[in-house]
Amino acid sequence: MDAFRLLPLAGEPPAERSDAARNREALLRAAAELVDHCSVENVTMDAVAQRAGVGKGTVFRRFESREGLMAALLDHSESEWQASVISGPPPLGPGAPPLERLHAFGRSRIETTLTHAALIRAAGRTGTRAYAAAAFAAMHVRYLLAQLGAHGDLGYLATALLAPFEIPILEQQLVLEQRPVEEVQAGWEDLVRRVVAG
Amino acid sequence: MDAFRLLPLAGEPPAERSDAARNREALLRAAAELVDHCSVENVTMDAVAQRAGVGKGTVFRRFESREGLMAALLDHSESEWQASVISGPPPLGPGAPPLERLHAFGRSRIETTLTHAALIRAAGRTGTRAYAAAAFAAMHVRYLLAQLGAHGDLGYLATALLAPFEIPILEQQLVLEQRPVEEVQAGWEDLVRRVVAG
Repeated sequence: MDAFRLLPLAGEPPAERSDAARNREALLRAAAELVDHCSVENVTMDAVAQRAGVGKGTVFRRFESREGLMAALLDHSESEWQASVISGPPPLGPGAPPLERLHAFGRSRIETTLTHAALIRAAGRTGTRAYAAAAFAAMHVRYLLAQLGAHGDLGYLATALLAPFEIPILEQQLVLEQRPVEEVQAGWEDLVRRVVAG
Repeated sequence: MDAFRLLPLAGEPPAERSDAARNREALLRAAAELVDHCSVENVTMDAVAQRAGVGKGTVFRRFESREGLMAALLDHSESEWQASVISGPPPLGPGAPPLERLHAFGRSRIETTLTHAALIRAAGRTGTRAYAAAAFAAMHVRYLLAQLGAHGDLGYLATALLAPFEIPILEQQLVLEQRPVEEVQAGWEDLVRRVVAG
């Protein structure tokens, strides 16, 4: 729990000093780029410092440890993903028909979850907003089910549609059963079709 | 991993000395009864010893720690549940129509999973057969889907139908959202109906 959240000042967390905030942003961006180019396992404090053009000490002062950096990166990645769902380009963002949006949501959530699984392993914890992240995804799927005219207990159905994106389930399908990710995505789209037709 | 399983003799694990086996069985039965009557949290080594009519030292010699007892109890409970699916009375066991069996499976899996969640917390680990347990459930659901004449990627659909029984999902619904268990069971039965109608 962030102490800022326990003691909000005038409803707002105190702003970081702006150079510190820029610094943090640059480090997270450098780390996110490294995650995209290499695997999470290969992202070191040294590599992040080098890419961001700062000393290694700065990275440690900001995040305390590689685990701390990974937890910050997890929260940062989830926030960016939520922003792209709320206001990014279609079909994930608004503007596409609801079924296309739901399919884009599934494809993108599977990818994001796999990156997040690696970050959670590296962070040794699930970041500060795991419950909020689950609630956001459920709210969005429920909204799209309503848009699609689905009937029934939409809250239950949204949870059930999100359940196959739990990390152990995805790892079971992709790693143990060696299913290609496209097959898992197609399986989910077929599940959505059945639920909506229901 | 049980060393007996790594070194089977003539295709069979060596039998425990029969008094030791009886002893172990009596302790597990006593512990299972206590779990049924009280909550897992209240089941102590002392209480198990007293109920089984042995000294506390015997319980420690057999299971090493409360965590060890809980892990053994978890495996024992999963085995008993699998036996009741394979050869117990209908509708969970054979003899009922496949849709009734699938609904009975859902109701019973939710209950078993909640008990197992408490045992896993108390054991601090998931027992020795977590993957085998997931594979058994998937095989059974897939078999019933085929019996029901469901079309499509039955392997994916079985995994998706089992996903809402993951412990974090059930705890989210029953604890955080405070849904009654009957509502969760009804939600699952409706999901099954949609998947089968596919």
